[in-house]
Amino acid sequence: MAPPKPTVVDIHTHMYTPSYIKLLEARSAIPLVRQFTQAPEPRMVLLESESRALADALRDPSSAAAKSVGRPLTLDYTSLQHKMSFMDAHGIDISVVSLANPWLDFVAADEAGQVAQDVNTEMADMCEQQPGRLYFFGVLPLRATLETVTSSVQHLQRLQRCRGVIMGTNGMGNGLDDKKLLPVFEALAAAQLTLFLHPHQGLPEALGGNSGGADYGHVLPLALGFPFETTVGVTRMYLSGVFDAVRNLRLILAHSGGTLPFLAGRIESCIQHDAELARAAKQGKERRSVWHVLREQIYLDAVVYSDVGVAAAIGASGADRLMFGTDHPFFPPLAGIDMDGLWPSVSMNATAVTKAVGEGTPDAKAIMGANAIKILGLEQK
Amino acid sequence: MAPPKPTVVDIHTHMYTPSYIKLLEARSAIPLVRQFTQAPEPRMVLLESESRALADALRDPSSAAAKSVGRPLTLDYTSLQHKMSFMDAHGIDISVVSLANPWLDFVAADEAGQVAQDVNTEMADMCEQQPGRLYFFGVLPLRATLETVTSSVQHLQRLQRCRGVIMGTNGMGNGLDDKKLLPVFEALAAAQLTLFLHPHQGLPEALGGNSGGADYGHVLPLALGFPFETTVGVTRMYLSGVFDAVRNLRLILAHSGGTLPFLAGRIESCIQHDAELARAAKQGKERRSVWHVLREQIYLDAVVYSDVGVAAAIGASGADRLMFGTDHPFFPPLAGIDMDGLWPSVSMNATAVTKAVGEGTPDAKAIMGANAIKILGLEQK
Repeated sequence: MAPPKPTVVDIHTHMYTPSYIKLLEARSAIPLVRQFTQAPEPRMVLLESESRALADALRDPSSAAAKSVGRPLTLDYTSLQHKMSFMDAHGIDISVVSLANPWLDFVAADEAGQVAQDVNTEMADMCEQQPGRLYFFGVLPLRATLETVTSSVQHLQRLQRCRGVIMGTNGMGNGLDDKKLLPVFEALAAAQLTLFLHPHQGLPEALGGNSGGADYGHVLPLALGFPFETTVGVTRMYLSGVFDAVRNLRLILAHSGGTLPFLAGRIESCIQHDAELARAAKQGKERRSVWHVLREQIYLDAVVYSDVGVAAAIGASGADRLMFGTDHPFFPPLAGIDMDGLWPSVSMNATAVTKAVGEGTPDAKAIMGANAIKILGLEQK
Repeated sequence: MAPPKPTVVDIHTHMYTPSYIKLLEARSAIPLVRQFTQAPEPRMVLLESESRALADALRDPSSAAAKSVGRPLTLDYTSLQHKMSFMDAHGIDISVVSLANPWLDFVAADEAGQVAQDVNTEMADMCEQQPGRLYFFGVLPLRATLETVTSSVQHLQRLQRCRGVIMGTNGMGNGLDDKKLLPVFEALAAAQLTLFLHPHQGLPEALGGNSGGADYGHVLPLALGFPFETTVGVTRMYLSGVFDAVRNLRLILAHSGGTLPFLAGRIESCIQHDAELARAAKQGKERRSVWHVLREQIYLDAVVYSDVGVAAAIGASGADRLMFGTDHPFFPPLAGIDMDGLWPSVSMNATAVTKAVGEGTPDAKAIMGANAIKILGLEQK
């Protein structure tokens, strides 16, 4: 008799809920969803780097530009049935679903509380339809008052399938080192809700490389801008003392920490050699190194597309803190490549784990599912 | 009899030559060198992120701000004797010295050719004073005409101790994917001069995290901005086809590639999943993956301050393509820490290599010196 197949958990997988799509459809600025004449599906435009392409499309809605702006809003983003089919096709037993970027970052203060409640309720209902197979990370109305945010945290705490919140690096508008966020981090820690930190803004245009008229598609903002943004966000948190101030705050960093595992040594060295920081440091106060925080309060997903990346993530954070993810439904197979219904973006990440720690090893089982079950307290069917 | 101590080569080590310091002293904008009343040493201000601090210092030259702006221009940056003492203290047999940033990026077109010739001649003369112990990477007058740049390359080719050129990510002002740079890359490749790619500009203020009034010293621009800039620079080169266009171009990337080893998988995945790039791709033209270019045309220094980083650099590029460096005289020991004349920034990088590949192993010997001797064609004493 073959041994039971180890449980596979996907902790980095997104959806947009019905009320959120309605919100995007009603907008005329990024982020938005728009049906153009020539395009078979509505187009979803999420990134500021797409603003010129969007302006072109809006100027001439029947143009080729309108057909290709942003990305198609396929059913993969919105249909529970599609999510379940994707999971089944790829042998994923449990998914911890989160709203995709840019969450509620753009939602005005007076509406954000209600929008958060709607989205979180829709997420919870969806999970209830698939008991034992779906959990979720909720969203917070970060532009609203602290009272509204705290009330959202309490709402999420009551929702049985909720395991944390997904958050961008903007925070309340001034980054994650904003002192105003401390009570939010405290509320999350007290509610035992894990914070899933995820990028959205990408690279400033100046770094983007399009100044010379070159066009590299979405590669620079997505491949580089996203992980850079995550790294800056978590480093600012670290430097401002958030991890010491809220010792039981637990963070999952998207895309294996952005670039944190690779740069942790350089960050440590720069801190140790910075005369200004040394002058400002309080006498006798022991600083926990970046490495300590990585092993004590930070978890990483394994969405890094190479064994080199997985090995570095393990080196930085430990094989017991790394959790498989797919980033579904982003990075779908390009038309014509999708021969067997399987997504290369998924197999790249699964193969990276196998190549880094060996197939069927305890570390592989841990990263592919057992870690998530333990860390997030998931119950199997 | 003890076996002979393996040769240690430092390929990432900087100096400023006399004519270059004179140039900085004559300036009133960044980069500059300025003697303020209160400061024991002249202050050197190199980074655009220091512009506010410089304005404060210039407004009140006898203030505390003027005492701490930028960094002290110590003899470590300018004295050959100090460089040799540093090498002796740390067991470094050979150094491949390069001018530190920002090189000639700010030097006007009509002056750049002469400045390049002066600096390169000074570098060559310095190396001649220490035969078998010093080599150098020269500088190019990239703001000047192509003819002037090419003539600089020819000059460098005639200088016996020159092994390449150091270059920032600006290129001629439009980045390293600027088509106008192709003849420069071709000239370097033909002259068998290796290009040492080094960051300077760091992070745009918007990403820097000082918006909320927080002050993290130089940590964000140096620890994150520098490696991000290198990664963007080399990725733009890759995407624009430079490596295919100049197949014998050889690149050394500073700081173990910035973040390239960690992000190469994500870059590959983003390229493979980008509909726009797929449409633009020429039929039947095989693309060499980032991994192939890393193993065929790119070398990395080992200045990454952690075994996790060294291991990732080896995973990406190979233990035969990684070369020890110190980044001297940047990151000096902070006053009061320097007990034994040794620099912790050096031992962090040496320890990282040992921890990653074992002490005295063939890989350790290769990374600490043998690779550089072979790759750069250095002759030992």
